[in-house]
Parts: sequence; C-alpha cells; structure tokens
Amino acid sequence: MTSIVRKGRAVVLEGPNALKLHDLSVSRPEPDAVLARVEFGGVCGSDVHMTRGEFPLPHAIVLGHEGVGVIEELGSNVVADYAGVPVSPGDRIYWCPIAPCHHCWYCTVEKDFSSCTNATWFGPIEKPTWGSYADYVTLPSDAAFFRIPDDTPSEAVIAFGCALPAVLQGLERAGGVKPLQSVVVQGCGPIGLSAILIARLSGAQSIIAIDGSGLRLDFARRFGATATLDISQTTPQERRQAVRELTANRGADMVIEGTGHHTAFGEGLGLCARNGTYLLIGLWASQGEQPFDPSFVVQNNLRIVGTQYAQAHHYHDAMRIAALHHATFPFAELITHRCMLDEAQHALDLVSSGAAGKVVMCPC
Amino acid sequence: MTSIVRKGRAVVLEGPNALKLHDLSVSRPEPDAVLARVEFGGVCGSDVHMTRGEFPLPHAIVLGHEGVGVIEELGSNVVADYAGVPVSPGDRIYWCPIAPCHHCWYCTVEKDFSSCTNATWFGPIEKPTWGSYADYVTLPSDAAFFRIPDDTPSEAVIAFGCALPAVLQGLERAGGVKPLQSVVVQGCGPIGLSAILIARLSGAQSIIAIDGSGLRLDFARRFGATATLDISQTTPQERRQAVRELTANRGADMVIEGTGHHTAFGEGLGLCARNGTYLLIGLWASQGEQPFDPSFVVQNNLRIVGTQYAQAHHYHDAMRIAALHHATFPFAELITHRCMLDEAQHALDLVSSGAAGKVVMCPC
Amino acid sequence: MTSIVRKGRAVVLEGPNALKLHDLSVSRPEPDAVLARVEFGGVCGSDVHMTRGEFPLPHAIVLGHEGVGVIEELGSNVVADYAGVPVSPGDRIYWCPIAPCHHCWYCTVEKDFSSCTNATWFGPIEKPTWGSYADYVTLPSDAAFFRIPDDTPSEAVIAFGCALPAVLQGLERAGGVKPLQSVVVQGCGPIGLSAILIARLSGAQSIIAIDGSGLRLDFARRFGATATLDISQTTPQERRQAVRELTANRGADMVIEGTGHHTAFGEGLGLCARNGTYLLIGLWASQGEQPFDPSFVVQNNLRIVGTQYAQAHHYHDAMRIAALHHATFPFAELITHRCMLDEAQHALDLVSSGAAGKVVMCPC
Amino acid sequence: MTSIVRKGRAVVLEGPNALKLHDLSVSRPEPDAVLARVEFGGVCGSDVHMTRGEFPLPHAIVLGHEGVGVIEELGSNVVADYAGVPVSPGDRIYWCPIAPCHHCWYCTVEKDFSSCTNATWFGPIEKPTWGSYADYVTLPSDAAFFRIPDDTPSEAVIAFGCALPAVLQGLERAGGVKPLQSVVVQGCGPIGLSAILIARLSGAQSIIAIDGSGLRLDFARRFGATATLDISQTTPQERRQAVRELTANRGADMVIEGTGHHTAFGEGLGLCARNGTYLLIGLWASQGEQPFDPSFVVQNNLRIVGTQYAQAHHYHDAMRIAALHHATFPFAELITHRCMLDEAQHALDLVSSGAAGKVVMCPC
Repeated sequence: MTSIVRKGRAVVLEGPNALKLHDLSVSRPEPDAVLARVEFGGVCGSDVHMTRGEFPLPHAIVLGHEGVGVIEELGSNVVADYAGVPVSPGDRIYWCPIAPCHHCWYCTVEKDFSSCTNATWFGPIEKPTWGSYADYVTLPSDAAFFRIPDDTPSEAVIAFGCALPAVLQGLERAGGVKPLQSVVVQGCGPIGLSAILIARLSGAQSIIAIDGSGLRLDFARRFGATATLDISQTTPQERRQAVRELTANRGADMVIEGTGHHTAFGEGLGLCARNGTYLLIGLWASQGEQPFDPSFVVQNNLRIVGTQYAQAHHYHDAMRIAALHHATFPFAELITHRCMLDEAQHALDLVSSGAAGKVVMCPC
Repeated sequence: MTSIVRKGRAVVLEGPNALKLHDLSVSRPEPDAVLARVEFGGVCGSDVHMTRGEFPLPHAIVLGHEGVGVIEELGSNVVADYAGVPVSPGDRIYWCPIAPCHHCWYCTVEKDFSSCTNATWFGPIEKPTWGSYADYVTLPSDAAFFRIPDDTPSEAVIAFGCALPAVLQGLERAGGVKPLQSVVVQGCGPIGLSAILIARLSGAQSIIAIDGSGLRLDFARRFGATATLDISQTTPQERRQAVRELTANRGADMVIEGTGHHTAFGEGLGLCARNGTYLLIGLWASQGEQPFDPSFVVQNNLRIVGTQYAQAHHYHDAMRIAALHHATFPFAELITHRCMLDEAQHALDLVSSGAAGKVVMCPC
Repeated sequence: MTSIVRKGRAVVLEGPNALKLHDLSVSRPEPDAVLARVEFGGVCGSDVHMTRGEFPLPHAIVLGHEGVGVIEELGSNVVADYAGVPVSPGDRIYWCPIAPCHHCWYCTVEKDFSSCTNATWFGPIEKPTWGSYADYVTLPSDAAFFRIPDDTPSEAVIAFGCALPAVLQGLERAGGVKPLQSVVVQGCGPIGLSAILIARLSGAQSIIAIDGSGLRLDFARRFGATATLDISQTTPQERRQAVRELTANRGADMVIEGTGHHTAFGEGLGLCARNGTYLLIGLWASQGEQPFDPSFVVQNNLRIVGTQYAQAHHYHDAMRIAALHHATFPFAELITHRCMLDEAQHALDLVSSGAAGKVVMCPC
Repeated sequence: MTSIVRKGRAVVLEGPNALKLHDLSVSRPEPDAVLARVEFGGVCGSDVHMTRGEFPLPHAIVLGHEGVGVIEELGSNVVADYAGVPVSPGDRIYWCPIAPCHHCWYCTVEKDFSSCTNATWFGPIEKPTWGSYADYVTLPSDAAFFRIPDDTPSEAVIAFGCALPAVLQGLERAGGVKPLQSVVVQGCGPIGLSAILIARLSGAQSIIAIDGSGLRLDFARRFGATATLDISQTTPQERRQAVRELTANRGADMVIEGTGHHTAFGEGLGLCARNGTYLLIGLWASQGEQPFDPSFVVQNNLRIVGTQYAQAHHYHDAMRIAALHHATFPFAELITHRCMLDEAQHALDLVSSGAAGKVVMCPC
C-alpha cells in the first residue's frame, strides 16, 4: 500500500495554451518504481507543439519528458539501475520516460521498444507521473534510469535532453557515421548539435553545419563542425556550392536533418553524395508536402531514413557520452537559460525562438 | 594486330526512332577480350527509352545490353571466365555489359563498380562492341562474363535480362529480404518478377504482387507470389486494405517498386509497415515530381532506398539462380516473344505495351 | 490471492539420475501469468546432461524446457500473446521458457535477452513452474508465448524443440545464410536439421549434411540437404575431399556445428572456405581442449562464432516457420518417439542414443 | 616500347639470409604504370620472416612492400590517382603493392581483392618491381596509389606502413569498433598502435594496451590508450584482473591481437566480454597449436575473426587518417630509426628486437 509522503509543485498543461502551476501530492513508490526529486527538467521542442495543442491530449498532464534528478526513495524491489549499477537514495539519475510493455509485437518480435504499442506516455495528473516540469517525478517499472557517475555534472547529462538519444537511434537505423565520411547537419539545435558531436566522435572527416543563429553555429564549431554555413548570409545555391567544394565535388556521405522544418527537405536531399544517406530526425512534427522526384533517389543510389524517439540503451549511451566527454566539449555551457517552474511559458517561448542553446526548468 | 574475320548484322540506333539493320565487320578479339556469337539479345525497357531519344547519345550505337551467346574466339590471354571457370570456344556465356575502369574513386574507394566514372558504355559502331541486337558481340577486358553450366538452358539465363542483377544489387543495398518478412512488389515485368523470385528464395512469408496484366500476375504467382492484386480491378484504397489484411494490419516489411512509373511512388510508400523499407528500382527513367510529406517517413521509421544498375557479381548470382532453379520456376516460359533482327521495332513495341513477358532478339 | 485449482503429475529431477513422478497441485495464474495444459513436452539433449548431474541444480526441478500446450486459464491482465494476437482458454500456444528481467545490463544495454543475468531458469517445484514433463505448466510474466495458428499441427511446432530458435539466434549472430552460399552441417539431430532447413529457406546453393545415422541423414535430405556424408562409411579425409568437390574446391561458406561433441571442431574448421564462417551451436555442454592453430584462422580470413540459447523472437520465428512450411517439409514425422510421463528415463535414453528423430513427452 | 632511363640501387633478397645491394636499371613505365623515386621504404615484420627464409620464394626479389615516394614519370595513360585526384611528376604518393587481377573469383564474385588468386606479388628483379628497399619503384597497372596531400608529411603516411591498412580491413571484417565500446589491444607495434588509433577515432570508451616495451606503451598512450599493462611487470592473471576492473567486470567488447606470437591467443580469448569479438591480425606468420576449448566460445557467445592483408581502399583510408590526424597524434615520431640501403640487415634486426617504433629505409 502506498501513502502520500511529500507535497510538490508541477506545471500542468490543462489544455491548448493553458499552463498552470499545481500543488500535487507525491506517493511512496510502488515496489518496482522510483521516486526522484527533479534537478533539471529539459525543455524540448515537442513541448512547444504540445502546449500549442497540435497533438490532442486525453487529459491534463504534467509537462516535461526530459530530466535528471536525485533518488528520493526506491521501490522495495529496486537495488540497481538498468545497467546493473547499484543505487541508493541520494544518487543522481538520468531516465528514459518511455516504459515499454515488453509484451507487444514491437517489444517482442521487432525488439523496437520505441515503437511499443502500449508504452506509458503521459499519464493523468491524479497518478504518479514522470512529467519533469515538477519538483518530483515517479519512474514506473520498465522506465529505465541510469546512475550518473559522480564526476559527471548533471548539466552535461541534461544538456542535449532527448535529442542525443534520438540521434543515436537515428544513426543506429542509418548504419552509423563511419570514419572518414563527410557529414552535413541541417539545423544546430539540440538534435543538430548531437549529430555533430556523434559524427565527430565517430571519426568523420568533414562535418558541415548549417543554421541561421550565430550562437548555435558557434556551438556547432565547438562540438566538432569543421565548417559552418549561415543561412542568414547564404543562398541555398551558395550552400550547395560550398558543400560540393568541401567534399571533392561529391556531396556529403550523410546529411542529417535536425531543423524541425519540412521545407529543409529539398535542400538536404540535394546535398547528398551519390550512394549517400539522408537521415530525417527533426521534422516529425512539421507536416506538409514537399516537391520530390523519386527518380532522383534511384539515379543517385540514395537512402532516405526516418527515425523517431529513442530506446533505453540510447539514453544510456547518451549519458556515457556526457560522462566521457564533458571536459572536452562544452556540454554544460549549452544550457543558456534556466527557468523556475512559474516561468514555464517563458521557457517554451525561448525554445520556440530558435535562438537559445538548451533551456531547462530548475524546480529547486 | 587484329584482323577482320567475320561479317555480321547489327541493329543500329542512328538517332531518335531511327533503327536500321547494318552489316558490320567483326575483328578478332584483343588479348583480354572475347568474341561471341549472340544466341539471345534481351530487349529491356531502357532500350525503349533510348530509341525514343529520351537519353542523348553521342553517336550511333548497336542496341542491346543484355545477352547470352557462344564463345567464338578468346583473346590470347583469356583461359577462364570471371569466376575462375575454364572456358573454350563453343561454351555458352552470360555477360555484364559494364566494364569498370578499376582506377576511379567509385571502383577503388567505394568498390561500387556500377557507379564507375569511366565505365565503357555503348561505344561507336566503328569499333568492336557488345551491343547484343547483333550476330556477334565483342566483350572488352573487364566486362565480366560467366560460363553457363551445361544443364542450364540459355533461355533461363536471359529470361530476366538485366533486371535480376539489378534487383540483386537493390536488395544488397537495402539489406536483403529476410526470412518471414512480408513483401509487396509493384509491377510484374522483369524487375518485379525478379523481386518476387528473390523474395521467395529468401524465405519471405507473404509476397503480394500488383500489376494490371493477367499474364504477368499469373507469372507472379508461378514465381512465388502468395497473393496478387490486379490494378485494373481494384482501387488504390482497396489494394491498401488488402495489403493490410494480408499483413496482420501492419503493412509490408518491404515494398519493391518495379513499375517504371513515378506515379506508383505514393501508393508504394503507403503500403510500408512501420520500420519498413521502400526499394525503388524501376522508375529511374520516369522523372517527375510526386506528392511527398517527409514527416510521414519520420513518424513511421521508414527507409526509402534507390538503386541503379548492377555489378559483375550480381550477374554471376543471377546466372547461378537460373542454374539452380530453372526446373522449379518457369524461367524459360517467361520468354513470350522471340524476334528476328529485322523485327527490332516490333520487339520494342511489345515491351512498351506492358503486356508481354520477356521479349528477346534471336539473331540466328 | 491464488488458489489451488487442479492436480497434475510432473517428472521431478530430485538429484543426479534421480527422476521421480510427483503429484503436484496447480494454482490459478497470477495476473500476468498463464496456466496451460501440456500437449507435448520436448526432450532435449540438455535434459540428458542435467539428469546425469553435469550441471549442479540448487533444488529439485520439474524437467523439460520445451513445450506446446493448451491455455487452461489466463491471468487477469492477459488478453493477447507476445505478438499481439488475442488469446482465450482453449488456444494452443508455444512458449519460450526464459523470462528476461528487462532491467539488467544485457536486457537493457545489449538487448540480448538470452544473456539476462536474472532470467528465471528452473524454479523450485513448490512454486508454479514451466517444467514441461508435466500435465500443467505455468508461464510467468515475461515468458513469451505465441498462439499457434489453427491450421498448424502442434507436432510441427514441437518437432524442433528449442533447437530451431537456437539456430535462428546463431545465424542472426553470424550474419545469416545468404542466397547461393554453400553450407556444411555437422550432425543431423534437431540442431543440425534446423540448420539445414533454414539454409534451404534462405536460398543456399549446396547444403552438405554429415551424420552417422541413416535415419537422420534421410531426414537431412528431406529438410533440404543437397548431399549427405555418412561418418560411419567415410574418413575425415574423404569427407574433406567430398566437400571440396561439391564447392568448386573452395570449401563451404558456412559450416554449422550441431553435433554436441567438441571433437568435431577440427574437422569443421577445415571444411570452411577462405572468408568462411564456422558457427558453433551444439557443443556447449561438451567441454574439452581441441588442437587449434590460430594462424590458420588468420591466413584464411575465417570467423568462428559461438552461440547459446535463444530469445522470444526466435521462438516466434520458429513457430512461423513451422506454420508456413509444415506441409512441405516432414516436421511432424520427425517425432519418432512419444513417451508417457512415467517413461521419462526411457525418453532420455533414446535422445542419448543419437539414433532417434525427436522424442516428446505426451502427458495426456 | 620502353627504354632504360635511370640507374638505381636495390636491396635484393637472393635467398635465406642473403641480402645484397644491387645496381639495377630502371625502365620507363608502361602506359598504365608509374615510376616513382622512393622517399621511405617501410620495414615490416614480414620482411624479417621472408629474409629468414620462412616463406619459400621462387626467385631473388627486391625486398620491401611498404613505401611512399615521388612520381618520377607517369605512364602515358595515367592522369589521376586511384581516387580520381589529378597527378603529375613531382607529386608524392603512397601505394598498395598488391595489384589484383580483377578477373578471378575473389576479385569478381567476392570483391575481396586481398585474396586475389593472381595478384602480382614480388616479381623477379629482372623486371620493373615495386620492391621499396630501393631508389626507384615501378607500380604496375592496378597497383593503386594515392596522391599525398601537400600539408601531410611523408613520415606520417609511412609511419604505420601496411599495418594501418591491415587493421582497417580487420575491423571492416569484424564489424568495426563502435562508440563507447571497450577494447583491449595485445602488442603495441605498428599493428597494435594502428588498432589503438582507430579505436580512439571510433569513439571507444576504454582502450587497454598490453606490451612489454616502455617505449611502445608510451606511444600507446599517445595514440589513445586509456590504460596500459606492461607484460614485463604483470602476470597474465593480474592483467586479466586489471581488464575486468576497467570494464565493469565484463571483459572487453573487442580484443585485438597484434603481437605476432601465437602464444598470445589464450590470454586474448580470456579477456573478451560475453558477446565479445577477438580479432586476430598479427600472428599470421606465427604457426603453432594453442590450447583451445571450443565450448568456451559457445558459452560466451564469442566471435573469433582472422584477417590478412589489405585492399586499395584501406590504403586510401590509412592515408586520409594520416592527413587528418598527423598534427594531433605523433605519427612522425613513431619513426624511431632511419636506415640507408646498405643497412638493411640492421633495419630488420631492429624490427625483430620488438623494441623499436617504426623502422624505415631512406634510399636517398
């Protein structure tokens, strides 16, 4: 039997554009669950879409699916994280919000947990929830969490939010960046910067970053881009020419879309080398038809790969990357804005502007 | 020094829609070349496009890039085929028309011979050529050829022309059909039937063939399709519904386009299962924009793979497949029309109609 | 709260070579569990090893990890099998005995459920168990089960026991058999015959089976072997010569070990072609040093791949293969012996003899 | 018609342990060949084996299969290197000594040029040869060469000789090092250091180097090793314990053998993690049986991969890696010894000692 042990605040999305700070009671965790105090709740572009009402929600939810926090209380069965590392109250953790059912077609036959038919997504606010714009979260059984190594700052782990895991899954689906390849990254928000970092860590020869924000292009260079193209100062034709010159006139072995705008599609496809791959990650919420001639894909042996969400092992890899490289790359500096729980709308506006680095909620 | 030893006839494409039968002198082969008498010259859909003038040609050519024939004379250095099998005059062979240079970026660095920058394509008619609408062909050095096993009918080898090698390369690029997958094949000409056959040989669970010709759908069933959909009797919506019902409501793990019409794109994409692949092979010559929403690819984890041409090892595999399975599947029956050299235009018209099986030129 | 609802018998291994038939009470299933009546319990080679005491067991167990049965009662949360197919009491099912924890390193980070650190293996007889030499089994949560299609005989599904899933995992680890490859299979018990079948379904060109039992070699041919070599009538040197002749003097692209005897290692390695793979499946319980020169592996670009157990999706694939091909291949005939629960020792002796096809327990 | 244009010296291996400096005439290159002046001829461990007479040679040869040099004269057909970069006399180049035939089974069907049946290996000294312990080499047609970028020191390119290409092929066969994996490298000569570098460039989390030379272990750290184990100061049991501690008690995801001694096999295999890979590169010339229990491979899901030689694209990648990273890693410093042509035996003795970095011949 569970009992209410704590009181906390949470940013509740009551309906389209209706954010409100609630006081919520927090129960003790079920035997396989974990109760954590939120240290940072990441603000993601999809939170903006949800708040605007672009995706119908069945009930009020606590916003926020990205987070790091401190274990407050472990369910009675929980002694280790999902990589076998022992955990105790007081340990910092990073978590994957999707708890797969492990019983459906996608979980069992395809082993694609991010496509689980029954995964727990945002639950109602009356029950324990992992919504991270809050003082406390409850991670249910099967929602993987990982202990953050002691020498790794929490800021480094939350810096890329769910973007780095999503990029890792995307590259897994696309076969990975191979040493010496040339890569173009469209858009230098969290997805694009994650892609730049992984391309760099995978030994890419040239990494060309495209964005319109000087701040973001500067981060792009610091995370590994070997060249940057500012869309506010170049035409698509000039960018295409620049990419050609930087790739011995062949185009990029891999183009990674992280813009969130479907209008980027045509330019990106045209930047691929013969035998190249176009990986689409960012535009899942940006629906709309784009001009497309399928014969171009055939005549150039191209591959277009779409990808959505991430799985527990991608979250684990993301944390390990932060642990391994936070001293070499400016993970923590990427957090340009920290907001209180009563500043949630402001935080969303910052993300929407496209000019921020990473925005996080700091409940404490 | 080479000398003229034989006289032969050849169908020459002198310009758009200008086919003419020429008498040509045939020289003795260079040391690394092979002179062969043509048994069958396959008529391919791309021959139709070339004859119509859709692709600019720099000079008159002997039409035909598919063929099986009998070795007439070997160059002085040639003792074996490109798989190490000893050869002598009188042996039957099947060949790959593209002779890669083995010195360029694609040949050396990417090992993609079908993208060779310097590959010998159709040469001028004044020189020895492999154009197969002719009595004789000369295979230059690096144009791979393979000895046809004695118990394998030539008809079985030419039945799929260059379509089977192209499908094999396409599936290699797309990761292959895996046992128990569901496959939809759009179009049941040589490309589509090749795809059906390989899906069957790879252990696919369900293979759904789509075409508008009763003849072709009958071949589809005989080459392994487990269900057929006649576009002359169904709407796209009905076909979509049928595919759903045949795939436990998930769609097909792989959809293979073999129609030659870019308008097939939208329907094909919609038939893919989540995590599925759409392999485009047939529409390289059918240019034109199609409605396309990139976010659909993202939200469903789709892959779109384009592929063009084939390499020597795909021709070898194609021949081995014919050798292994010609008694079980109706390879030879697929040849519905045999034409003399002076019937070349008629042969092209038959292919263009979409109602024939395989059309071949029989020089003898 | 659960209550005892049925009485059943079970073959209990009380200690080394101590089998005894017990009467056991069967409780109603927990909310995520399933209670089934056993139709067939497969007798596996590892049951022989366990009975002999080669693996220390912490307590008495109900023997048998292979089974098909009929759903007697579903836990209150269970409405579908692990592939999303709705289930009801009376449906026949096939199951994977290993219930992964979904929380450890192997389950989460490597996604290798067959290496789960906490998997439920044989439990004590005082609790509900899936031991299949029994009238009833209880499948706990996370032990995947799949509804057998109505037109598929139970005999076809149990015919290969856990061998077919294990072979599917082995081939997944080794990259699969590719169309046109040459394959040698050492040993034609359930593992070897499974390998032959999959090689055949994957389009292998030649499949050479090696065994000493005429009965098994006959099954080998019927499941797809293109040639057989009887070890009772040939020397290793003659077999090596025969394989060379059947593979254009190159050796086999893949050699699959399914003998259960480590002494087969040297012969198998020597049958591999340059660039070939040697997949070891059968000899996990047969420990012992064998002569081995590592430079041979280097000079011939060989791969040696070991594999153990199987995962839920391999059981699902195994069932689908039985469903798809039971009318074409002699699955059911492979069951050469059916034993009652009081004949367990006899069943194990039959398996140990190496001369049986498949032996199954028939509780009813 | 070719004519003699230059006189040069060359180190000729006349028979076992019989090295002699010859004066040789150098002809103008054939139309597809290239004549180059040798800048550095790398001294490889296999040169030691050849000089000792461990491999029978049919005739006297010019020793040396590794080299960088300056184009002296291009054959009349040659205008670019094998990656499409234009070349002229005076350009520096790096080459692959093996010229595949492009007509045999391995070249055509398996596309494995390093297994070519007809590859030009060391030719007789009476003809133009690429033996690199010489003032001049002649690269025949199909022996790929690549123009060294202007800003890349020749020392950086020759530093790893043929070891880096061989490691690249080995990793290609073994599936590559993936980001965040743990890697153990046995032996820190050119093969081992190449492996360490590639593991680092591929994003490995931990790279544990094993050797007995302080000089080499120091290079190991500078090329990316995160930990080193000195065999002169540790027992195998201590190393095993150390690897366990550095890998969360799991062992290494990949162990790479670069020792050249078959006695390293047992230790290496025991350092692999469950599901790990053991890549054997260095011991091709070190024949001898080692204790081996095949069931260990089965019970731990291990893979053992052997690999030999390299292909043109691996040489190209090796050069690109040197070009990209020579300022970050101590490529040039790895060359610890430079020898004149009349010091060839001394150079071989240095390599044989196991204590040198890279030894090169400097003809000039």
